[in-house]
Amino acid sequence: MQIREIGEFGLIQRLKKRTRFSDPSVVKGIGDDCAVVKICDDQLLLITCDLLLEGVHFNLTYTDSYHLGKKALAVNLSDIAAMGGNPRFYLVSLGLPPALSLAFVEGLYQGMEEMAKKYKLSLVGGNISSSRKILLDITLCGESQPRETVYRDGARAGDAIFVTGTLGDSSLGLTVLKSGSKVKDTPALRKLAEKHLSPQPRVREGRFIAAHHLATAMIDISDGLVSDLNHILEESRRGAEIWIEKLPLSPQVMKYSHIYRKNYIDLALAGGEDYELLFTVPQERLKKFSRLSRQVSLPVTMIGKITGEKGKIHLIKNDGEPYLLRREGFRHF
Amino acid sequence: MQIREIGEFGLIQRLKKRTRFSDPSVVKGIGDDCAVVKICDDQLLLITCDLLLEGVHFNLTYTDSYHLGKKALAVNLSDIAAMGGNPRFYLVSLGLPPALSLAFVEGLYQGMEEMAKKYKLSLVGGNISSSRKILLDITLCGESQPRETVYRDGARAGDAIFVTGTLGDSSLGLTVLKSGSKVKDTPALRKLAEKHLSPQPRVREGRFIAAHHLATAMIDISDGLVSDLNHILEESRRGAEIWIEKLPLSPQVMKYSHIYRKNYIDLALAGGEDYELLFTVPQERLKKFSRLSRQVSLPVTMIGKITGEKGKIHLIKNDGEPYLLRREGFRHF
Repeated sequence: MQIREIGEFGLIQRLKKRTRFSDPSVVKGIGDDCAVVKICDDQLLLITCDLLLEGVHFNLTYTDSYHLGKKALAVNLSDIAAMGGNPRFYLVSLGLPPALSLAFVEGLYQGMEEMAKKYKLSLVGGNISSSRKILLDITLCGESQPRETVYRDGARAGDAIFVTGTLGDSSLGLTVLKSGSKVKDTPALRKLAEKHLSPQPRVREGRFIAAHHLATAMIDISDGLVSDLNHILEESRRGAEIWIEKLPLSPQVMKYSHIYRKNYIDLALAGGEDYELLFTVPQERLKKFSRLSRQVSLPVTMIGKITGEKGKIHLIKNDGEPYLLRREGFRHF
Repeated sequence: MQIREIGEFGLIQRLKKRTRFSDPSVVKGIGDDCAVVKICDDQLLLITCDLLLEGVHFNLTYTDSYHLGKKALAVNLSDIAAMGGNPRFYLVSLGLPPALSLAFVEGLYQGMEEMAKKYKLSLVGGNISSSRKILLDITLCGESQPRETVYRDGARAGDAIFVTGTLGDSSLGLTVLKSGSKVKDTPALRKLAEKHLSPQPRVREGRFIAAHHLATAMIDISDGLVSDLNHILEESRRGAEIWIEKLPLSPQVMKYSHIYRKNYIDLALAGGEDYELLFTVPQERLKKFSRLSRQVSLPVTMIGKITGEKGKIHLIKNDGEPYLLRREGFRHF
């Protein structure tokens, strides 16, 4: 059997079954945004790694190495954010073609450093190999307090579902870039392209939500809202309904999606690479959440609720009719 | 300028200069076998990552996925060993061609698990992407006590230089495998091939040396003795002399190197992938070292000494004449 026959998540499930932890200091292994290990009393170590491959995750015809470096760190920061953690330091594994310019590599590091500076991260190690295509694998470590760490598996029936920011911008931005449109002269298109090339991880928001014990479950949206919500539902053994008309959309997505032959609802549900946070808040904490999030101007929208119907997602329109999604989100294999 | 013009170590030096640590908890960044971070009082976190690329680091015509998995973890374990650390948990980034068989992936995990079991490691996370060629990037974390951690930068003039095991076996093993020789029926050839395909990291030895405060500097030999000794000398700002006739050689290397048109001294000096430990012991601790290493049958050989001649390595024959090395060790770019 080939691995494409069981797919990315099928393969992960299969491998997950193989791993058993005899080590009591492993708080969370495979199946969350980060691995969580108890290193000392009252302190957890969060670790995540993300691989970016030329031709699979990025294309040098529409990104430069500076933005690639920034984004490589951003997608890892987003994983730390999704646990409510404080990012601390990172390592970089690089594969580089020997004929690559030194300027490219320096741009890459400049991008990473700029993102690192913003979050006070230290680059502590890594390795460099020659390779045919460019590849980057960043390992990012963070820390969190045990009581201020949010996992994927805590959602309960009745919890409200929230997302930060707006959805679908990054995916539409990629379409715009691929189309070859000149984005420079149109602010709205430039904004969409930037959302794809230079995502801003929600570290501050994740920390705030976790520190105030507001969420029962949290994840970052990398594969698409429905796909990532599914991870929460699987880990929490719950279902959900999503209210289609509540999905937060930017003016740019509203205006330009049809020009690029995209349905903005589908973009919001399955676009991918938004790097927004998706989290669940229990009914009894909604008041506190609403008060606190207003105080710090947290950009959040309630988009649905968790149900007891294990594994089911109902996409519901205002008129009560179900919404039919055409595709679910990005899948490897 | 292309990166091949400044080479692997030139590039690393250049990137190292860019990284400054404002974070006081970073004990050691780029420039050692592992990054070292102080996570809590009296406990250091060691982190290392190593990338293995198909066609660059391994070739599926002479390794199967089980051995590849074992070796991928072994090379990282060797880095933890070189600091005297205790390996604890690991993450795996995988790039896999969609048409790859599930059996291959399961073999890979079986190999990693076998090595993990031996050292009581937990697999805690990672990610899987589709890619054209197979790639594996393992991040391994370990721990050590601050006073029981050995770096590359502590060697002093007069220190004796030791290595564990024998040198050159892995490199000759690779030559044997590449030549297409049938290794199955000749125990000596099988042993050489095994040294290449299934290296045994010196975790126990590294821990022992560190716990008893025997070494001033330590590194594992991955690129070749001379090349890795150079790292110690650069970080310690010292020189060294190596006594050619003292280099530890296995009977297999002695017997088969000339058949495969290799010089066994060159193999020992620059072969690479030995994953033995290279370390320095001050004169005043030699007695203690000799007593303790005999007690636990530590397989070590004294092969030279550290000098004050910064950056210089003298390869000296018994007759006092210098030995001329033809090549220095593996270099990317």
